[in-house]
Amino acid sequence: MSDIIRIGVIGAGRIGKLHARTLSALVPGVKVTAISDLVPEAAGAVAAECGIGRVAADHRDILADRDIDAVAICSSTDTHAGLIEEAAAAGKHIFCEKPIALDLERIDRALKAVADRRVLLMVGFNRRYDAGNARLREAVASGRIGAPELCLISSRDPAPPPLGYLKVSGGLFLDMMIHDFDLARFLLGDEPEEVFAFAGCLVDPEIGKIGDVDTAMAAIRFKKGAICHIDNSRRAVYGYDQRAEVFGSLGMAQTDHQYNDNTVLALASGFSRPPIKNFFLERYLPAYQEEGRVFAQCVREGREPPAAGRDGRIAVAMGYAALKSAKEGRPVKMSEFPGC
Amino acid sequence: MSDIIRIGVIGAGRIGKLHARTLSALVPGVKVTAISDLVPEAAGAVAAECGIGRVAADHRDILADRDIDAVAICSSTDTHAGLIEEAAAAGKHIFCEKPIALDLERIDRALKAVADRRVLLMVGFNRRYDAGNARLREAVASGRIGAPELCLISSRDPAPPPLGYLKVSGGLFLDMMIHDFDLARFLLGDEPEEVFAFAGCLVDPEIGKIGDVDTAMAAIRFKKGAICHIDNSRRAVYGYDQRAEVFGSLGMAQTDHQYNDNTVLALASGFSRPPIKNFFLERYLPAYQEEGRVFAQCVREGREPPAAGRDGRIAVAMGYAALKSAKEGRPVKMSEFPGC
Amino acid sequence: MSDIIRIGVIGAGRIGKLHARTLSALVPGVKVTAISDLVPEAAGAVAAECGIGRVAADHRDILADRDIDAVAICSSTDTHAGLIEEAAAAGKHIFCEKPIALDLERIDRALKAVADRRVLLMVGFNRRYDAGNARLREAVASGRIGAPELCLISSRDPAPPPLGYLKVSGGLFLDMMIHDFDLARFLLGDEPEEVFAFAGCLVDPEIGKIGDVDTAMAAIRFKKGAICHIDNSRRAVYGYDQRAEVFGSLGMAQTDHQYNDNTVLALASGFSRPPIKNFFLERYLPAYQEEGRVFAQCVREGREPPAAGRDGRIAVAMGYAALKSAKEGRPVKMSEFPGC
Amino acid sequence: MSDIIRIGVIGAGRIGKLHARTLSALVPGVKVTAISDLVPEAAGAVAAECGIGRVAADHRDILADRDIDAVAICSSTDTHAGLIEEAAAAGKHIFCEKPIALDLERIDRALKAVADRRVLLMVGFNRRYDAGNARLREAVASGRIGAPELCLISSRDPAPPPLGYLKVSGGLFLDMMIHDFDLARFLLGDEPEEVFAFAGCLVDPEIGKIGDVDTAMAAIRFKKGAICHIDNSRRAVYGYDQRAEVFGSLGMAQTDHQYNDNTVLALASGFSRPPIKNFFLERYLPAYQEEGRVFAQCVREGREPPAAGRDGRIAVAMGYAALKSAKEGRPVKMSEFPGC
Repeated sequence: MSDIIRIGVIGAGRIGKLHARTLSALVPGVKVTAISDLVPEAAGAVAAECGIGRVAADHRDILADRDIDAVAICSSTDTHAGLIEEAAAAGKHIFCEKPIALDLERIDRALKAVADRRVLLMVGFNRRYDAGNARLREAVASGRIGAPELCLISSRDPAPPPLGYLKVSGGLFLDMMIHDFDLARFLLGDEPEEVFAFAGCLVDPEIGKIGDVDTAMAAIRFKKGAICHIDNSRRAVYGYDQRAEVFGSLGMAQTDHQYNDNTVLALASGFSRPPIKNFFLERYLPAYQEEGRVFAQCVREGREPPAAGRDGRIAVAMGYAALKSAKEGRPVKMSEFPGC
Repeated sequence: MSDIIRIGVIGAGRIGKLHARTLSALVPGVKVTAISDLVPEAAGAVAAECGIGRVAADHRDILADRDIDAVAICSSTDTHAGLIEEAAAAGKHIFCEKPIALDLERIDRALKAVADRRVLLMVGFNRRYDAGNARLREAVASGRIGAPELCLISSRDPAPPPLGYLKVSGGLFLDMMIHDFDLARFLLGDEPEEVFAFAGCLVDPEIGKIGDVDTAMAAIRFKKGAICHIDNSRRAVYGYDQRAEVFGSLGMAQTDHQYNDNTVLALASGFSRPPIKNFFLERYLPAYQEEGRVFAQCVREGREPPAAGRDGRIAVAMGYAALKSAKEGRPVKMSEFPGC
Repeated sequence: MSDIIRIGVIGAGRIGKLHARTLSALVPGVKVTAISDLVPEAAGAVAAECGIGRVAADHRDILADRDIDAVAICSSTDTHAGLIEEAAAAGKHIFCEKPIALDLERIDRALKAVADRRVLLMVGFNRRYDAGNARLREAVASGRIGAPELCLISSRDPAPPPLGYLKVSGGLFLDMMIHDFDLARFLLGDEPEEVFAFAGCLVDPEIGKIGDVDTAMAAIRFKKGAICHIDNSRRAVYGYDQRAEVFGSLGMAQTDHQYNDNTVLALASGFSRPPIKNFFLERYLPAYQEEGRVFAQCVREGREPPAAGRDGRIAVAMGYAALKSAKEGRPVKMSEFPGC
Repeated sequence: MSDIIRIGVIGAGRIGKLHARTLSALVPGVKVTAISDLVPEAAGAVAAECGIGRVAADHRDILADRDIDAVAICSSTDTHAGLIEEAAAAGKHIFCEKPIALDLERIDRALKAVADRRVLLMVGFNRRYDAGNARLREAVASGRIGAPELCLISSRDPAPPPLGYLKVSGGLFLDMMIHDFDLARFLLGDEPEEVFAFAGCLVDPEIGKIGDVDTAMAAIRFKKGAICHIDNSRRAVYGYDQRAEVFGSLGMAQTDHQYNDNTVLALASGFSRPPIKNFFLERYLPAYQEEGRVFAQCVREGREPPAAGRDGRIAVAMGYAALKSAKEGRPVKMSEFPGC
């Protein structure tokens, strides 16, 4: 493998475009050499913007390309597992957007393919690469704040996605809170034992009509004793609210709001700061950049990525546990899910 | 009734001393004219410090004093309900520290005495009078942040109280989280429907040995749909951590840390602020002062206090619901408790 | 001298009332036993509120009272020096509001009387006792931020005082910036060498008509090399802005805004905090309380107060230096003033 | 002119590399097509990294290239004016790093060449494009904070540059404070009338030996009455401290510290945040990106840039005024400089 990691991007939608841009312009040592999409015009537009040499309508063209070291799977969720298997068969290392699949058995088959072919698989839990979350993890891992006892994560979107998206998303727990489940495991360095969740439809009744919720709170007991809170809302009028806090025997570490700029305005009515960064593209751009850098480094060094297949599987299982808890009105043990 | 409200304080322990001092020195229109304690020396010392004219070993001397308008019951929890009944019988208005009693039926009898004699009863939920919490409540009540959807309350003591205190305290949910239960009802202006709690003993195994917990997290679903999180720890090494947040359809209101002073120190290692105020005497002194002012005003105007007997009762019921939930591993409906 | 320091307050105007209240209610080990005012009704009202036993129309009644250990001179500026001399002659320790006088020779005569009679004199530079400023001083004195190189002080009133007050105040530099001059000396632990000032009338032309300014900025070079900035405005619509910063070879210490409460409100328009504390009564109440405590302690222990007569004199000289600089358009050396 | 602005970068040192990278990767609608440096290897390395097609040892190759619309002059200060004249003669639009020259007459000749050839000249005052400073300017320009009365700018480098750099830099006022002079004019939208400065050598005596200073404070009176403070230090151990504040009749706008990340750590010793961003590459990267975008837009639309030749000239004149003031110990009127 040359020093430059050559990547093919599969899928040129919102998230594919994001990864293509970030990998092309902001990650050193990486080159996006091909992009595919079922709509070739979409792939072509991204290729033109990012200077990507090859455009394909069929992802198999990318998999067949011997010069490509790795693929970034950014297509729709229902295609992830199959593409992982195909990519593994083609001997490509794999970055795959979350979730791997909405079905644990389907995930297991995909992970088996990855293990069999000894390729690397990194799942797109971008928040692990956020500088603030990384410092929180470090505060726990180094023992600086002692044994973790409480963990609080708030994650609120500025506005609900379109109903069309929500219908195939797997629902709030598997589409949105899945990030927070992974973040909790990452921050605590521990595994969940039991999940309880309350959920409701407070933002938009249309979301309830399709069987989903838009507001939820989960409490999770971890194996070593720490208790974790997660809250999600599909609508925070003041921006994309992303905060985490770990409280331990020797101290606490938390992330603060990230405002649009660092100004303070003082008028007779009081002091004001601007809204916080409005959505994940702005808020997590440096995290996506770092994610790309880490993926390339793992590929280069043949090292297991920080968020690997197993992490992707557990986060999905936690989503199902929360969903079950909210539906059945009882705490759900992770041991109800095989392999957790 | 004269313009000056004359108050007798029953109990000269830590909290009795606090109220005697605050009412004497910091609340205009109020005069503490008598104080009693089973240990007359304790009452005498407080009287000397605060310029209180009369010291009694027996609280009945205070209740028999025709010049006294109201009493502040600051004795041990097990005496509260009886003293409320005696004070009501004597026609005195009543300020009573929380909890009214650890038994709902006992509370009901005391509240009946209050109702029968038409005296006022205010329960000592001091956090309602904190300027920050009052502004949060106002942000909800005014509609400024819209319909409340999420509520987060963190309440962490700097260090556990002595085991002797804990043994008779009723346990974390009834002794400590009871404040947060009342605060949640106050902030949301709504009644709880269902309570779930996780609890553990992470701080000191001795606390576990006496059957109590030192770390807990509760999730509460309120009748109008809002979901509330509360976390408690008996030990936060960085001070007395008291924060609340209400998130609604139009915005969010939260209280920030209260540091010991307003300095920032920038060294090569980073920027630092001092620890937060260390305990409730410092943190809530202005709230106790406001509490005294409001009580005097209610007595003067014959107006129902903001935290009345019913509020004291519900907070205790919520404590039992949380305790039951933690023990039985299931969410507990408030309707399991008569009158809730 | 008994353990309780007995104080007579001379002057029952705004500042006399403040000291009478603070010393009576908030400073342990102190008793205000008498108060005088040319308008006896004013003294009587304060006495009634604070439980002060003796009311006098003539301050000489207080000076003749053998039970009184110390006086607090809170009358109009033009009477300060004479009262200091009389109090010294009567053997009373003296707390005197700033400035001692508006004339350096007059100050010198008063200080001579103090020295001759070996009484203590503390000048009312309340900001030295502010917790934040005290921590800044400590950061310098302890060497924690290294050798001080820059010092920045912003001091802005919420609104100009009445023109009647301004006419006899001595002007912005001697009435308002005098506090900042003392604070700079206190923070740096150094003496001023040279002062430059720009000043203007930007707030209210009426202030200009009486020969005063309402906006000013001073730069001061201290003997050990540190350079200090001070800015003053008579009108800050967002409250009483009081900030200081010391920058040294090893770090920086600064004081932050003090908001009315610790709430943050997040709406679609952004994040807001309430205005800052509105005036010196609110902002510096704890500082006045600490000032009283320190004064009583100095009297009790026969110890030179932190802000003594010499400090009062230098601050006035700095005021004249700044005034001269602004008028003559040149930096003014402190050596132009005898004894500086 | 095509939609894409083609730029040639002259100089591949630290600042040339920065602009080449930023313009190549982060500014849409711009293409760096050539880069020159006296050391061709330096230019080659940047070209390789940024994908720049043409490398030249002689800038004249760039000026002769008909496909190039504009040049970015990033060479050493002494070459700026001459290159501006050459570029103007070649009909290229010009972005030039500050300062244009260290001599006002030399600047005037260069500006004349620009005017004669009707090319655009933008001077590299990157702070104007910082989001925070832009919001401050907007708060003034919109009238939101009323008429500006005070302006405070603190600008402190993390560590002094090498002595070799300092020797040819023009000194602190012309090399470092020049940015703050321009920022003050930008924020206030007004012209300076009179400058006073104190300066000293407190950081490193070696800097004093070469006739320069490392610590300075300037006070500037602007024509409409506002008074401005600037402080500079060549060494702030806690990072690259960049703050500004404008205080007006209706409010205040200020920029806050920019920390390395948004974490807060609470230990028994207090609360801490990380150091602030360490140098201009990190702190102002988004500002450089915006600067590039604005330059390209001005070229595309034939519009005068926000920081044009005249702005570059006045900032240099202010630097000389401050230098003169510090040396002669007197305030210096801008009218002492022709054309100011």
